[in-house]
Amino acid sequence: MELLNTDEIRRAVQAALAEDIGPGDATTLATVPAEAQARAVMAAHEPITVAGLAFAEAAFRELSPAVTFEQSVRDGQSVAAGSHLLSIAGPARALLTAERVALNFVQRLSGVATLTAQFVEAIRGMRAQILDTRKTTPGWRRFEKYAVTCGGGRNHRFGLFDLILIKDNHLAALRDAKPNAIAAAVRRARASYPKMQVEVEADTLDQVRQAADAGADIILLDNMAPAQLSQAVHLVAGRAKTEASGGVNFQTVRAIAQTGVDFISIGALTHSARAVDIGLDFE
Amino acid sequence: MELLNTDEIRRAVQAALAEDIGPGDATTLATVPAEAQARAVMAAHEPITVAGLAFAEAAFRELSPAVTFEQSVRDGQSVAAGSHLLSIAGPARALLTAERVALNFVQRLSGVATLTAQFVEAIRGMRAQILDTRKTTPGWRRFEKYAVTCGGGRNHRFGLFDLILIKDNHLAALRDAKPNAIAAAVRRARASYPKMQVEVEADTLDQVRQAADAGADIILLDNMAPAQLSQAVHLVAGRAKTEASGGVNFQTVRAIAQTGVDFISIGALTHSARAVDIGLDFE
Amino acid sequence: MELLNTDEIRRAVQAALAEDIGPGDATTLATVPAEAQARAVMAAHEPITVAGLAFAEAAFRELSPAVTFEQSVRDGQSVAAGSHLLSIAGPARALLTAERVALNFVQRLSGVATLTAQFVEAIRGMRAQILDTRKTTPGWRRFEKYAVTCGGGRNHRFGLFDLILIKDNHLAALRDAKPNAIAAAVRRARASYPKMQVEVEADTLDQVRQAADAGADIILLDNMAPAQLSQAVHLVAGRAKTEASGGVNFQTVRAIAQTGVDFISIGALTHSARAVDIGLDFE
Amino acid sequence: MELLNTDEIRRAVQAALAEDIGPGDATTLATVPAEAQARAVMAAHEPITVAGLAFAEAAFRELSPAVTFEQSVRDGQSVAAGSHLLSIAGPARALLTAERVALNFVQRLSGVATLTAQFVEAIRGMRAQILDTRKTTPGWRRFEKYAVTCGGGRNHRFGLFDLILIKDNHLAALRDAKPNAIAAAVRRARASYPKMQVEVEADTLDQVRQAADAGADIILLDNMAPAQLSQAVHLVAGRAKTEASGGVNFQTVRAIAQTGVDFISIGALTHSARAVDIGLDFE
Amino acid sequence: MELLNTDEIRRAVQAALAEDIGPGDATTLATVPAEAQARAVMAAHEPITVAGLAFAEAAFRELSPAVTFEQSVRDGQSVAAGSHLLSIAGPARALLTAERVALNFVQRLSGVATLTAQFVEAIRGMRAQILDTRKTTPGWRRFEKYAVTCGGGRNHRFGLFDLILIKDNHLAALRDAKPNAIAAAVRRARASYPKMQVEVEADTLDQVRQAADAGADIILLDNMAPAQLSQAVHLVAGRAKTEASGGVNFQTVRAIAQTGVDFISIGALTHSARAVDIGLDFE
Amino acid sequence: MELLNTDEIRRAVQAALAEDIGPGDATTLATVPAEAQARAVMAAHEPITVAGLAFAEAAFRELSPAVTFEQSVRDGQSVAAGSHLLSIAGPARALLTAERVALNFVQRLSGVATLTAQFVEAIRGMRAQILDTRKTTPGWRRFEKYAVTCGGGRNHRFGLFDLILIKDNHLAALRDAKPNAIAAAVRRARASYPKMQVEVEADTLDQVRQAADAGADIILLDNMAPAQLSQAVHLVAGRAKTEASGGVNFQTVRAIAQTGVDFISIGALTHSARAVDIGLDFE
Repeated sequence: MELLNTDEIRRAVQAALAEDIGPGDATTLATVPAEAQARAVMAAHEPITVAGLAFAEAAFRELSPAVTFEQSVRDGQSVAAGSHLLSIAGPARALLTAERVALNFVQRLSGVATLTAQFVEAIRGMRAQILDTRKTTPGWRRFEKYAVTCGGGRNHRFGLFDLILIKDNHLAALRDAKPNAIAAAVRRARASYPKMQVEVEADTLDQVRQAADAGADIILLDNMAPAQLSQAVHLVAGRAKTEASGGVNFQTVRAIAQTGVDFISIGALTHSARAVDIGLDFE
Repeated sequence: MELLNTDEIRRAVQAALAEDIGPGDATTLATVPAEAQARAVMAAHEPITVAGLAFAEAAFRELSPAVTFEQSVRDGQSVAAGSHLLSIAGPARALLTAERVALNFVQRLSGVATLTAQFVEAIRGMRAQILDTRKTTPGWRRFEKYAVTCGGGRNHRFGLFDLILIKDNHLAALRDAKPNAIAAAVRRARASYPKMQVEVEADTLDQVRQAADAGADIILLDNMAPAQLSQAVHLVAGRAKTEASGGVNFQTVRAIAQTGVDFISIGALTHSARAVDIGLDFE
Repeated sequence: MELLNTDEIRRAVQAALAEDIGPGDATTLATVPAEAQARAVMAAHEPITVAGLAFAEAAFRELSPAVTFEQSVRDGQSVAAGSHLLSIAGPARALLTAERVALNFVQRLSGVATLTAQFVEAIRGMRAQILDTRKTTPGWRRFEKYAVTCGGGRNHRFGLFDLILIKDNHLAALRDAKPNAIAAAVRRARASYPKMQVEVEADTLDQVRQAADAGADIILLDNMAPAQLSQAVHLVAGRAKTEASGGVNFQTVRAIAQTGVDFISIGALTHSARAVDIGLDFE
Repeated sequence: MELLNTDEIRRAVQAALAEDIGPGDATTLATVPAEAQARAVMAAHEPITVAGLAFAEAAFRELSPAVTFEQSVRDGQSVAAGSHLLSIAGPARALLTAERVALNFVQRLSGVATLTAQFVEAIRGMRAQILDTRKTTPGWRRFEKYAVTCGGGRNHRFGLFDLILIKDNHLAALRDAKPNAIAAAVRRARASYPKMQVEVEADTLDQVRQAADAGADIILLDNMAPAQLSQAVHLVAGRAKTEASGGVNFQTVRAIAQTGVDFISIGALTHSARAVDIGLDFE
Repeated sequence: MELLNTDEIRRAVQAALAEDIGPGDATTLATVPAEAQARAVMAAHEPITVAGLAFAEAAFRELSPAVTFEQSVRDGQSVAAGSHLLSIAGPARALLTAERVALNFVQRLSGVATLTAQFVEAIRGMRAQILDTRKTTPGWRRFEKYAVTCGGGRNHRFGLFDLILIKDNHLAALRDAKPNAIAAAVRRARASYPKMQVEVEADTLDQVRQAADAGADIILLDNMAPAQLSQAVHLVAGRAKTEASGGVNFQTVRAIAQTGVDFISIGALTHSARAVDIGLDFE
Repeated sequence: MELLNTDEIRRAVQAALAEDIGPGDATTLATVPAEAQARAVMAAHEPITVAGLAFAEAAFRELSPAVTFEQSVRDGQSVAAGSHLLSIAGPARALLTAERVALNFVQRLSGVATLTAQFVEAIRGMRAQILDTRKTTPGWRRFEKYAVTCGGGRNHRFGLFDLILIKDNHLAALRDAKPNAIAAAVRRARASYPKMQVEVEADTLDQVRQAADAGADIILLDNMAPAQLSQAVHLVAGRAKTEASGGVNFQTVRAIAQTGVDFISIGALTHSARAVDIGLDFE
């Protein structure tokens, strides 16, 4: 989990436990003796790509430092249905009380990793890279972007601060500069942020040409069909990187990759991945 | 948004903006003049049930108190594709910088509301109520549970603190008390939390009978087929409420409701709702 | 301290230390060498029921991980004047600087436990249970409710979220529904929160009857004299639990318990317990 | 409320509301329509000295900015049983949901103010001033010290940082310096904190003499009977201020004041004040 | 103050006020009546470039919403000694209590802006841009970087996250890849962060050549004398941007700029700017 | 680091690391393998007085508990250029990522200590003590005041709460009390804060006389030349401590000390100390 530090995982887990436990796990406190011990195995109930095991460990450990773990797989591995992910042993109360929070993290993050891995697999052998977007769950961006890398994807910008991305709405604010709005915007961006890459969103081949002429580092080809994407790539001719975006799904992704674009960005990786089926089985 | 107070919405929005903006929206700062004004409309690009508009408003207002809003619909309404949800006007920078965060909230919460509304619609006219679960995004439980109510669903317990729910793993810790483990657990729960309702999870009809005999307020019928659910409802004979859980989808939900259960709980409402397609169109 | 997790104790203690120490314990820094060691014993100077020792340990340990403890009693024990509670050894500075904070926690929580234990003792052998209320020190609810359990009391609801309690002021808002306001309110509560218990406050026997008829789970008998309480219990006839509230003190509590009510709730347990006398004696 | 700023009151109130409301005031949400309006009067049910009205206002306003107030008295006033403190009007839900938190603050703080005022009254016309101590509720020190001033008392030090107070345990760490430990400690204190006042705790007349000779600014006369206090005051002869502490109650306070001490400090003001009886009566 | 949002300014100011005021501004509370009003002017006592006025306004307003302001200049303006910056009127207590915090912010930030403006002025008319570094006061990076822009400087990266900067210590970890360590490192950086610019630190002309050949976007010329800088610029020949760093002061900056480098980065802008002399004069 | 507790150091370091690392140290993650180990030495590149080593240790340890340290000097020591301060070994990534934050703390705090030590040295053998002021970096007061003690200085008040300091602006609010405004202010201060020292700022000898007559504990001689300071000291004649302030620099400090004042306070110690040159050299 190299992109995530221990402290931020712990804090997210603490907040999640507080949200779930509130003034106390009434059922467990009433029915399970403090001294009872238990063992459990976290297992995948369908084929998945794993992400987020450190969150599960942190959840159990937060409730009892006496919990011990044995990790059977590592984040980023793809495993078959039935595979064991983690063995846990310790105070039964800690295991029962943290169970749901632990699963909520791993199921969601593995869901993102699994969906990403499926797209990566769909274009295996081709040059294009699968990227995520900023369409993440508020508060979860770094976790979800981490999960994307577990699935073999790459991260687009982390936020509004680490890449210039000029869209039509930005250009609209430069109306007087038309018809050279793109060039003007690129120039302003370079002046204000001399050390940042500049990407330009293009909806038409004409805008693609303007962006390439303006010296954009990357050109976002928005909602173009494969045929148009090919023309755009040809037109750019290596002067900038190209990124296809919009309308990407398992039916279209391979054709899009074949147009020669450098990147394919997919919002669904983070905004619409379903939770995968993972369970905690007590022995 | 009666279940959510203004302050918690504002704090969630502030955290989301901080996450996305970090040290600054480089593109907007470089290309859009501080004095530029803009107008935009938030619109549904598919049929949806709306939830979370207050988050969007909070996001824009956080960046500029000068932003004005006109809400065209209210949370809980189902609208056709193309429907306007919100009109916004104000400083162009504020609108551009907050756009993604505003959409991330509304798309996700409306996704939950829309999925819920589809299940509610699927059993319209029947007595059973659709419930959510604790399978929520960590940090988002209250928001997602609110979205469930926007879709016409009801909320199951908010956490481990407001309902006793005795599962097999709790019973396992009472081994010595067998074969009357359920009765023993209910007794303990009542003694410790005299003012809380007690629900018991049952996997078999035998457990259903034990739970009803033990005086459980609610019995969770776990992963039972409709035929078995009917038998369980018959066996309980009104002594407790009944809740079906597991294997609920659009193919099965109606048959499940017809068994006469009081509640049908569905984890997917919150753990696997996809974001619905909503856009912000600048004029 | 099963109801309280280590983390919340630690945070409360950190805040208390920050409040007391501010920019530094001037006296100790100026007069006590960093290397000085000390030993001390925390002892009860009057008969008490103990609560909150973990807070004391956390306070000392926060200032120095080198502090060692030996606990002589456990929370919930009733001890004679002069009894040792805790032996502590470690850096003299840590002991001196944390002393007041440690005592402030233990004196107050043991005060709550002691007062509770006295009420529990006063009705020993009877069926009624002593309950606390929501009249707690803001910020301390969970700590004080924990102390109540140390004294042998039971916890009423933790907040506004885990039990429906319909009072006259709620009924006033349902004016149109009269004269069946209570029934209407119970019905609404069940519809909105199908999984929560419903308690109704009754000031008269007529209201008691209405509440029982409406199917309330619990009926709060507010400020009734023992004779009236007996009538109310008789009238309810087991259809609901009964709770006496108001005018409870050491003179009245036994007579109240003899009426057959299930619960007796006492605000003074938390809002007016005096701190008990506990000292830290250095050797 | 000049010693307390608006922001810290608001934060304390927000935390208290969160603690009480948690995921929602179930009763009010289920039974009271969002549009219902209400009026209520906060009134003293016994004679009290008022403190903390701003907390009550903040609690109601936090839940609805539409709430209006009319304050009938001000903090620091002593009022008869039955006196109105505050009139409130606004959304019924806001009034019902914030009621308990508002009362919890005002009842406790007015309890401290009332007890203080009784001690101040008991020595009216005499020169000694009533002081509080550091025996405050953790997290509430500034609020409780404020309440003490509402009752006419004065504040002793706010924490370990704003006054040097050398006790026997500090002296014990200076063993080698004996028999001049007090002088040595005062010297060290002056050297390290040249701008702070130095108080010395004395248990015997001999220590009183040493402290006065060492140039202490204030001498704490610990647990001395009035006769001994008189001797101590005589012995100090104006060279330092004197403070009586320990064994102060309504039976003893006047005799203690008559010894001529400058200050009388009383831990009970904050650690054992009972909540006074204040109610919120809806119209 | 476009780079800073109102909320982060307010939070920094609140923390600073809490740090300074603690349990209360004893002097002002004791000597200044609550109703006293005052007027004051914040004025520069030496020639400065202004930065941070919004912090001053926030400090006064935090203590009283009744304070009114009239700003005479704007951040980024250079003004003569004696110039008025801000007129303030309102409750005397608020003005006196917030004075020091307000000045601490404005004096420090204007110090950074003033030092930056002097370097910018020193190379006026030349192409090189003055940049800051990451040598900022922990907790103040965004504020200090904002102040640099007020002085006419540009911002280097905001942190470790928005630019790849490969230094010798990173290369050391790639030992096996030598002698092509720079090329290997650039390749790895591009693979992991396809959307980020890559800068390479070079201590020798040989490293400059390697970096340019490896396709670095920017080359950091570390601690080179002007003659060597000229050679480096010649060698790069426009293939990358060049940045001079190390040994920059008022004696050398102009000669460095004349070598044709694109950027000159100066740690002293933020780590060693002295506070400028600004006072608050009461009328 | 006796004045600073471990927890506040850790929190400041965590905030600083978050500020610098944001979503990740891109360079290190891309180029340095997770398993690479490194060793480095932190060394002074000029003669300095050391302060803040615990911050550096905390920064490295925060990123990896596997980092080991060997401290060669202690805070408060003055060392020659080239002296080793700290040896560090551990995961290369942790060392590289924390390097800048660690240095930012130590360079700034040692800068304050070094400047202080130079002033202390300048008046060596004389009775006056060097004091700091409240002109500190917001958020850093305790750290900077700690650094002042490392340099041999003493701390003036920590904030507005631990010393009364009556300035002309406070007197202005007491206009009616003139011509005895100083006496009136001192009287009010003593009444409100009976346990705090009272200092009075004097601009003229007449004010000095008034302050001494009023019984001030300390008199601040503001912006007086040495000749006038001598007169003031003579006039006070031991009735109060005296503090010189304003116009203190290396040219004047010795002459000021020779006037016999007790304290010399210098704002520049904290508001204008430059960062000293310290580096981290990897082996």
